[in-house]
Amino acid sequence: MKASQKILALNAFDAARPGELPPETQALVKRRQQSFGPTSVLFHEKPLHVVSADGVWLQEADGSRYLDVYNNVPSVGHCNPRVAQAVSRQIATLNVHTRYLYDIVHDYADRLLATFPEGLDKIAFTCTGSESNDVALRLATIATGKRGFVVTDNAYHGNTTAVAEVSPSSRPGKPLSPHVRVVPAPIGGAEVGAKLEADVKAAIASLEKDGHGFAGFLVDTIFSSDGVAADPAGFLKGAVDATHAAGGLFIADEVQPGFGRTGAGMWGFQRHGVLPDVVTMGKPMGNGIPIGGVVSRLDLMQGFADSVGYFNTFGGNPVASAAGLAVLAEIEERGLVANAADVGGYMMARLGALMQRHEAVGAVRGAGLYLGVEFVSDRDAMTPAPEIASHIINALRDRHILIGAAGRYGNVLKIRPPLIFGRDHADLLVETLDASLTQL
Amino acid sequence: MKASQKILALNAFDAARPGELPPETQALVKRRQQSFGPTSVLFHEKPLHVVSADGVWLQEADGSRYLDVYNNVPSVGHCNPRVAQAVSRQIATLNVHTRYLYDIVHDYADRLLATFPEGLDKIAFTCTGSESNDVALRLATIATGKRGFVVTDNAYHGNTTAVAEVSPSSRPGKPLSPHVRVVPAPIGGAEVGAKLEADVKAAIASLEKDGHGFAGFLVDTIFSSDGVAADPAGFLKGAVDATHAAGGLFIADEVQPGFGRTGAGMWGFQRHGVLPDVVTMGKPMGNGIPIGGVVSRLDLMQGFADSVGYFNTFGGNPVASAAGLAVLAEIEERGLVANAADVGGYMMARLGALMQRHEAVGAVRGAGLYLGVEFVSDRDAMTPAPEIASHIINALRDRHILIGAAGRYGNVLKIRPPLIFGRDHADLLVETLDASLTQL
Repeated sequence: MKASQKILALNAFDAARPGELPPETQALVKRRQQSFGPTSVLFHEKPLHVVSADGVWLQEADGSRYLDVYNNVPSVGHCNPRVAQAVSRQIATLNVHTRYLYDIVHDYADRLLATFPEGLDKIAFTCTGSESNDVALRLATIATGKRGFVVTDNAYHGNTTAVAEVSPSSRPGKPLSPHVRVVPAPIGGAEVGAKLEADVKAAIASLEKDGHGFAGFLVDTIFSSDGVAADPAGFLKGAVDATHAAGGLFIADEVQPGFGRTGAGMWGFQRHGVLPDVVTMGKPMGNGIPIGGVVSRLDLMQGFADSVGYFNTFGGNPVASAAGLAVLAEIEERGLVANAADVGGYMMARLGALMQRHEAVGAVRGAGLYLGVEFVSDRDAMTPAPEIASHIINALRDRHILIGAAGRYGNVLKIRPPLIFGRDHADLLVETLDASLTQL
Repeated sequence: MKASQKILALNAFDAARPGELPPETQALVKRRQQSFGPTSVLFHEKPLHVVSADGVWLQEADGSRYLDVYNNVPSVGHCNPRVAQAVSRQIATLNVHTRYLYDIVHDYADRLLATFPEGLDKIAFTCTGSESNDVALRLATIATGKRGFVVTDNAYHGNTTAVAEVSPSSRPGKPLSPHVRVVPAPIGGAEVGAKLEADVKAAIASLEKDGHGFAGFLVDTIFSSDGVAADPAGFLKGAVDATHAAGGLFIADEVQPGFGRTGAGMWGFQRHGVLPDVVTMGKPMGNGIPIGGVVSRLDLMQGFADSVGYFNTFGGNPVASAAGLAVLAEIEERGLVANAADVGGYMMARLGALMQRHEAVGAVRGAGLYLGVEFVSDRDAMTPAPEIASHIINALRDRHILIGAAGRYGNVLKIRPPLIFGRDHADLLVETLDASLTQL
């Protein structure tokens, strides 16, 4: 569990206020407790009981609507009609695995690969971002013959055994695996790129000293679970150069920033002017139909195929491909990358203005429609205030806005709505946040 | 890659006979080579170019239809209308993650858990069988504090880094990971249960001697990639008792045998009168919509949740749940478990009769709609004849029947059609196989 999730989930069942929930919802929580048990992770002190969704809105049985500022999976909008129609048509026509030939997976693969820089021209489909990162780690260990990875210190890259080892946020308070080194998230100041480069170099040296060797540097290019890090654009360059100089691979985890979210192109790494060796994708790829992917070069894919012999039963199946194609079409035809830049920029300016009125807002940062609002109890010391984040999340929920938190201390409000978010939605969020902060 | 897959894929691109393929198919193979590259796995010397599917049939652009005796994912039939309608309705209504409350995942969880024996009453949803087994391994290592696993010697349990380590069929010719011990597949003879028990005990002793300790015994309860092992029913009992006596968990991988395929109930372990500690599911669960699951007890799930903090973004989402519910409804209302027993029994008798006419058929075995036909070059010595299997697979493809092979030597024809397979389909398969064997 990410630290941020942990904070939100503290309540789960125990601390929920069941007396305040409608009887049907209380009954559902009881059923959930019986079947999901301890693996349940439920948001909000007063969990939402949703029955439908549309665009940027989720709806409860009584008709109340909630503005969705949390969900990056339905990036082209909840229940997007084009995706729904494409999936409905395809599931009634053909849905098999890729050991037979069919057209749609190649229509999709070609269109998706066309969004990547030259050289990144091979794809393997998976079902989830976790599966994608699990493959990426093996691409790197096979290519380098080394085991060691460098990640940021509150990174989250997924939930498989191997990927959880390079996800420090999943193991709060536990020692890292011996082959993993962390560097601080690159947050704050113009010198952040030079610091990251130096930190990565030191981490590589440590891995080499301890005999693990260096396989790769793996980052989410918007640093989601680290609390969002975006500026100055280009800060990844030195660390990526150092990675390559040391013989390692640079793996760009685009599960969160990818598919246009940062507003500066399809992929988060493009903001930094760097060329990854491996790119991984997941969450928004199929707008909720499980699909993930790994894009890399021929030489790396060849080494992987020779060594592992990978096959993914559902990966790239016709229904997943249909969803993926519809998502790309929506992003392109509706100009959602430009929308992310426009609305994100507008919202960041308005959020920034809140700093003048609210001491609790220590920083506002991000790119496109991935923004972070950092809460602090002391702005000079930048003392993390997760209790404010937790309070605001539940206060916004009571005012019908859904939002979450991220960061090592769970004190960064995480703004990552569907990409169809408009300026009017941004206004509603900023004004409601303003009011909630005033009532702190 | 499974040995069996390797044989079928030998051709992949290089050995395909492109001159014989229609021009559109040749063009598609070329595009595939460009985008998938070396990770492509393609069936048949002359790959199938499918455009639609229906029930037990796949169809090419020219209208030719192929009887599907291979695919266990679309277990309630290709493009099953109930599943298609359920998914189409749900994807237009609501599709989010399980951190909010919604009804359909609990309708599904409750209905699914009702098919399990008492005590196995907690579920965690994933997206794939691989993710499920990846979780199961951690349930066992956390509960026991040990690392060692025992599996069969040509087992396949999935494609993540951790699961590939307990999948010897994915690593032909490579040494096993130090914490893994294999036992021969329990094929042949009334004493197979006693032999398996002794083998498992020896494997446990070896793990303990080498300091790994024993975490669990993991088997596919129909032993798919080992070449199918079903009789005598109950043969797992001694090995499971030995597992428990040694403090390990018994993990039943029901990704292939589950959901009624063996004809003796919903789960393959039920044929053996054993109670697993953990059950994993995947492939047919959503009839092609990616969904998987792990079922276990409260104490084991608690340990896992405390230690790992697992969350799966797509796992159990409303669309996946809708597909899963529709699959259960089809299995129950159309009596597909009974159909698997009936058609499977009928087909096994007819296949058995082929042994009298064809020396190449060394054995016929299995349960329900998971049957194996073992090809040998010398029936007394039972010398494996993978070349016959490979020839028959391509000969059947030329006669419009799709089938694959399994087993350590790739010499076992693997019969696992959709569960709606009828006696008439069985007749067509047996008679076409008979004719192909006659022409050997």
